Amino acid sequence: MTDDLALLEDYIQRCSNWGRWGAEDHLGTVNLITPEKVREAARLVRTGKTISLTMPYDEGGPQTGNLGRHNPHLYQLASGPGYLTGEQQSVETPTMTKWRESSGQPANALYDDVLVMPTQSGTQWDALCHIFWRGQMYNGYSAADAGTGGSRTNGVQHYTGKIITRGVFVDVAEHRGVDSLEPGDAITVDELEKCLAAKKLEIRTGDALIVRTGFMAARRGKWQDYAGGPAPGLSLHTAPWIREHDIAAVATDTWGVEVRPNEIDCWQPFHVVCLTHTGLAIGEIWDLDGLSEDCKADGVYEFMLSASPLPLTGASGSPVSAVAIK
Amino acid sequence: MTDDLALLEDYIQRCSNWGRWGAEDHLGTVNLITPEKVREAARLVRTGKTISLTMPYDEGGPQTGNLGRHNPHLYQLASGPGYLTGEQQSVETPTMTKWRESSGQPANALYDDVLVMPTQSGTQWDALCHIFWRGQMYNGYSAADAGTGGSRTNGVQHYTGKIITRGVFVDVAEHRGVDSLEPGDAITVDELEKCLAAKKLEIRTGDALIVRTGFMAARRGKWQDYAGGPAPGLSLHTAPWIREHDIAAVATDTWGVEVRPNEIDCWQPFHVVCLTHTGLAIGEIWDLDGLSEDCKADGVYEFMLSASPLPLTGASGSPVSAVAIK
Amino acid sequence: MTDDLALLEDYIQRCSNWGRWGAEDHLGTVNLITPEKVREAARLVRTGKTISLTMPYDEGGPQTGNLGRHNPHLYQLASGPGYLTGEQQSVETPTMTKWRESSGQPANALYDDVLVMPTQSGTQWDALCHIFWRGQMYNGYSAADAGTGGSRTNGVQHYTGKIITRGVFVDVAEHRGVDSLEPGDAITVDELEKCLAAKKLEIRTGDALIVRTGFMAARRGKWQDYAGGPAPGLSLHTAPWIREHDIAAVATDTWGVEVRPNEIDCWQPFHVVCLTHTGLAIGEIWDLDGLSEDCKADGVYEFMLSASPLPLTGASGSPVSAVAIK
Amino acid sequence: MTDDLALLEDYIQRCSNWGRWGAEDHLGTVNLITPEKVREAARLVRTGKTISLTMPYDEGGPQTGNLGRHNPHLYQLASGPGYLTGEQQSVETPTMTKWRESSGQPANALYDDVLVMPTQSGTQWDALCHIFWRGQMYNGYSAADAGTGGSRTNGVQHYTGKIITRGVFVDVAEHRGVDSLEPGDAITVDELEKCLAAKKLEIRTGDALIVRTGFMAARRGKWQDYAGGPAPGLSLHTAPWIREHDIAAVATDTWGVEVRPNEIDCWQPFHVVCLTHTGLAIGEIWDLDGLSEDCKADGVYEFMLSASPLPLTGASGSPVSAVAIK
Repeated sequence: MTDDLALLEDYIQRCSNWGRWGAEDHLGTVNLITPEKVREAARLVRTGKTISLTMPYDEGGPQTGNLGRHNPHLYQLASGPGYLTGEQQSVETPTMTKWRESSGQPANALYDDVLVMPTQSGTQWDALCHIFWRGQMYNGYSAADAGTGGSRTNGVQHYTGKIITRGVFVDVAEHRGVDSLEPGDAITVDELEKCLAAKKLEIRTGDALIVRTGFMAARRGKWQDYAGGPAPGLSLHTAPWIREHDIAAVATDTWGVEVRPNEIDCWQPFHVVCLTHTGLAIGEIWDLDGLSEDCKADGVYEFMLSASPLPLTGASGSPVSAVAIK
Repeated sequence: MTDDLALLEDYIQRCSNWGRWGAEDHLGTVNLITPEKVREAARLVRTGKTISLTMPYDEGGPQTGNLGRHNPHLYQLASGPGYLTGEQQSVETPTMTKWRESSGQPANALYDDVLVMPTQSGTQWDALCHIFWRGQMYNGYSAADAGTGGSRTNGVQHYTGKIITRGVFVDVAEHRGVDSLEPGDAITVDELEKCLAAKKLEIRTGDALIVRTGFMAARRGKWQDYAGGPAPGLSLHTAPWIREHDIAAVATDTWGVEVRPNEIDCWQPFHVVCLTHTGLAIGEIWDLDGLSEDCKADGVYEFMLSASPLPLTGASGSPVSAVAIK
Repeated sequence: MTDDLALLEDYIQRCSNWGRWGAEDHLGTVNLITPEKVREAARLVRTGKTISLTMPYDEGGPQTGNLGRHNPHLYQLASGPGYLTGEQQSVETPTMTKWRESSGQPANALYDDVLVMPTQSGTQWDALCHIFWRGQMYNGYSAADAGTGGSRTNGVQHYTGKIITRGVFVDVAEHRGVDSLEPGDAITVDELEKCLAAKKLEIRTGDALIVRTGFMAARRGKWQDYAGGPAPGLSLHTAPWIREHDIAAVATDTWGVEVRPNEIDCWQPFHVVCLTHTGLAIGEIWDLDGLSEDCKADGVYEFMLSASPLPLTGASGSPVSAVAIK
Repeated sequence: MTDDLALLEDYIQRCSNWGRWGAEDHLGTVNLITPEKVREAARLVRTGKTISLTMPYDEGGPQTGNLGRHNPHLYQLASGPGYLTGEQQSVETPTMTKWRESSGQPANALYDDVLVMPTQSGTQWDALCHIFWRGQMYNGYSAADAGTGGSRTNGVQHYTGKIITRGVFVDVAEHRGVDSLEPGDAITVDELEKCLAAKKLEIRTGDALIVRTGFMAARRGKWQDYAGGPAPGLSLHTAPWIREHDIAAVATDTWGVEVRPNEIDCWQPFHVVCLTHTGLAIGEIWDLDGLSEDCKADGVYEFMLSASPLPLTGASGSPVSAVAIK
C-alpha cells in the first residue's frame, strides 16, 4: 500500500500543470488548443462528412441511480395531445379564434419541455472541479469552492467555445480484433503507440485522443453495471505519456475513461493524476461506434473535433454534442 | 382579419417544404447542409479564433416563469464542502483511509451535480416539433406525436451532428448605428440585403443567417420582459426570401427571432410559416455581442458555424454550445 | 374475453356514484366523511398514541423508474458543510461579521433543499383524475382535462382537509398467520368479513378500510418488482361490497391495492370500477407494519385516521403523512 | 452592536433546551406533545368541522426564486390528452384492444405526474436542521451533518406522526381591527396575552400557537416581496415567553414567523434562539384566512391541530397538510 501512494505521488509530481498557465487558470490542457491548432483541425476537413459522437440523452441511458445519477428525464410544459383536445387557447388571437370556431379545430400552439439531467449521466466532459485531492482541485483551488450554487472555480463553462481541435482516433477494439475489450483490460502506452503506428499517425500537442474500447457496443441497451462497474480503460501508467505529449483531451466510450477495478489502492487514480493535476479534459460515455465504422471504411483516423460543452455555470461537467468532421 | 389569414396561407403555400425531402423527413432545411457545405464552412477558418455564441446557463438568465420556463437550476449530488467536513468516505480505499488517519485529512472525493432546465430557457435551437399549425407539425406529422415522454417525430435529436455550416452575420444594430433596435422594430428583406451588401456578402443555399438586434445587450442582467414581451426581430415578410434563398438556419439575440408584437393577428406567424412549413432551423437567445465586437475589429462577417444541439430524444428544443470559428 | 368485459360493465353499473353528489363533484366517496364521522373518529382517541402509516420518502424507496416513477430525490440549495467552509456570508449582518472576524468562525446560516418526487412514488392517495375509462374520469369529466399544468378536474387538492375519519384495520397477514400474502393472492369479501368479525368490528359508512397484506414487510429494502409486479391485494369482486357499505377510502401496503396479475383481462380493473366509477379514495404503499405491531399488542383495530393529502393543484395523487391516532 | 450580541446570547442561554431530552434528541419541543396532549386535543373536537390551513402548492405561490426557492412545478408522466390521441396503448390487454378496435376508442389509461418543489416554498414546518448558529444545529449537532443527500441529524422526518396537539389561534389582525398588520409590526408578549385573554384562553405546555397577521390575505395573488421582504411577525422578545410556557410549535401566515426587518443586527434572530436553541417547531406560510372566518363565526379559538409533515428523510422542512378540527 505504501508503494501505491508513493507511485501516485510520483505521477502527480511528474504530471502536474499547476501554475503553468498562471494562478488564475481554469482551463488546464485546453490552453494547448491554440488558434494554430484550430486551423490545423479545420485543414483535416476533406469530405465534409460529420459524425456525432454523442449517445441519445433519454431514459434508455446507462445510469442506475448510483452516486445519485439517473438517466435524463424530459417533462412536458405544453403538449400536442393537449392542444388537440382543447388546451393552449391562450395563444390564440381573434382571427385564430374565429378560424377555430368555423373549422372546429384550433389553429396554432406549441410543444415545450423541461430537462432534468445529472451532468454526468451521458456523453460528457468532466470539469476540472469534478475531482479533489487532498482538499484541492486543479491549480490548487480549494474544494470549498465547489459548493451549492455551482463551483466558483474550474466550472465547465470555462471550456465553452474552446474544445475544437485535431481529433485522433485509437480504436483499440479494432486493433485487437475483438468486439470489445473486457472489464479490467488496461490500455497501455505500448498499445496506444502501436495503434497509432498502425494508422501512421502521430500524436501532437493540443490533440484530443479518442479511444474506443468497444464496451459501449457490448453493453448498449442491456447496460448492467456499465456505469461504475468493472470496465476496460486507460491504464494509470499512461499518465506520464499523456503529460509528455501535452495532449489536450482524452475521451472514451466507457463510464470513467480509466480501467476498473483501479490498478492501485486508490479510487480513480487516473483522474487524480490527469484531471486534478495535469488539468486534462476528460470525456466519458462517448459513442464511438459510428466513428469506428466510418474510419474502417475510409481509413482516415484523424479529423476536426468540435466538442464545446454547454456553459453551465459552475457545473462539474456538461453534456456535449461532440462531432467528428472529416 | 380575413386578410391576415389569407396572407398567412399564401406564405405557407409559397414557403412550404413538406414532402421535399420525403415523407419521413425530420430535418427540414438542415438537409441543405451538405458535405460540400461543411467543406465550404471549414475553408472559412483563417485565424483559428473561436467565439462562443451561447450565453451562460444559470439563475441569471432571462426567464420569468412565463410558459412554465424558469432559468436553469444546478443542484449538487456531492460537494467540496461536504468532502472537507467528512462526507464521501465511501470512495476511500484502505490506503487512502490510512493516509487520512495519519494526515487528519481525507484524500480524494468528487463534486457532482444535476441540471433542471427548460429546453427553451437559454440559447437554443427550436426543434421542428415545437410549433403546430392546424393539428400538424413540419412535414405533416400529427401534433399527437408530441406527447409525454417526448415527441415521436421531429425531435431535436435529428439535428445532432448536422448543424455545421457557413455562418453569415448580419449586425443590424451596427448597421443602423444604434446600441439596440427597439421593441416592435421589424427587420425587412431590404434591410437584410443592405446589411449584406455593406459587407460584400451574399447569402447562399445552406447558410446559417445570424442576425443581431442588440436587444440582449440592452437587457442583459435587467431582463424585464425580454422573454416573451415586445422585441425587435425579423419581419414575417422575410419568410419568402428565406425560403427562396434556401437558408438552412436563422438565429438571433432575441427570445423569439420574429418581431413582437406580431405583425398580423396570429401568434408567432413567422414560426408558423418558417418553422412549421419551411422546416427552418430557428435559433433563439443567442449571445452575439462577442461576435459583434470581433467582426467590427477584423471586418470578417462570415465563418464556420459549429452548432450541433444535444440529442435530447423527442425534445422541443435543445441548449446548444454554438461556436463561430474564424 | 367477452365475459370479462361484461363483468366489468356490470360492476361499473352497480358501483357507480357518478352524479350522486352533483355534476360538479370532485370528491367521490370522501363526501361520506361528514362532521358526524369526524366526531366519531375523534371519540376513538383513548390513549393518545399516534402511529405514522407513511414510509420514508427517499432514495431507498420501491420505485424502479417504471412508468417514469423514480424514488424521491432531495437536492440542496444551501448546506451546512458549505457554511462551515465559507459560503453564505450573504446572510451576515455587521454584528455577525465582526463576530466572525474575531472568532474565526461564521455565526449563522441555513440548510435548505428541493424535492423532486413523482406523486405516486411512495405512500400516497390516488386522485380521482388518476385513471380513465372510455375517455372519462370519475363523475364523467373528460380525460382531456388532465393535461399539462395539472388536471382541471378531480385534482388531489380536493381531498385536502377532508380525509379524517374512522380507520378500520384489517390485518390479513395476521389473520392468516403468515408473514405476508403471496403475489396473486386475492383478498375476498368473505375474508374481509371474517377478519372484521374476529375483531368484533363492523364496517360503517364513511370509514377508511386499511388492509395489510404483509407484502411491504416482505420486500422492504429488497424491493425487486414490488412497484408494478405481481402482488397480493383486494379482489376485483370486493367492489360491490365496498360500494354497498359506502366505504370512503381503502388503503393497503402494496403498490396498487388490487391483486396482481389482474383477475380479468383488463389493466387494473378494481381501479376502473372503484376509483373511476365509485369515486373511492385509494391509498397505496402505506406502511402498516408499525400499526400491526401496535394492534396486536392492544387488541384495538379501530382509530382516528388523519390523512389529509397536500393541496397539489391538479395532481394525480399526493404523498400523505397518514397517522393513526388511538 | 455589542449589545445586540449580548442580548442574543442571553436569550440563547435562557431559552435553550439542548440536552433536555437527551443527547440523541431530534425532536425538541415536539417532545412536549405527550399522549395526554393528544387526548386533550381530541376532546376539543365538538362539531366535526375540518379546516385546512395549507395554501395550494402550485405556480401561483409566493416564491420569486430568492434563496433558490421557486414555486412548485408539476410535470406530467402520462396525460389524458395523450391517451385520447393514441398514447398509452401499453397498458392495454387483449380484451381492451378488441374493444378499442370495435369502438374506435381506447379503454383505460392513467394520468401521472412529478412534483419539483423546494421544501420551504409553501406552507411548511421548518426542521431543526434548518438553521445553524456557531457551527451547530439544535442539540449541538454539527452543521456538517446537513450536507448532500439530506441531513443526518434533525431531519424533518423526526416530526412525522408527532404534531397532533391542541391548537390555539391568536388572530392579531382581528384583535387590532385591521385587515393586516404592516411590515415591521412586531407582535409582543403583551399583545399575545391580551389576544388570549380576550378569548378567555390560556396557553399550555405542548400547545401549538397559531398566529395570524393578515399579511397573506393582503398579498395573496400579488405577492411582491412577501417571500423574504419586510413583514409583520413575532418579536424576538417573545422567545423567553415561548420557552417559559413550553409551547411546542408556533406557526404564522408569513414567510418567516418573525418580524422583518429583524429587530437586532442579526439575520433571523428569533430562529437562532427558538429553532436552534429552544428546538421549537416553526410553521411558515400557513393559510389562516379560512380559520379566521370560522373562528369569528363560532367564537371558538382552540381546536385539535393535525399537522404531521412528510417523512422526507433529512430534509430542512416539509410541506404539510395542516388541519384544524373543531
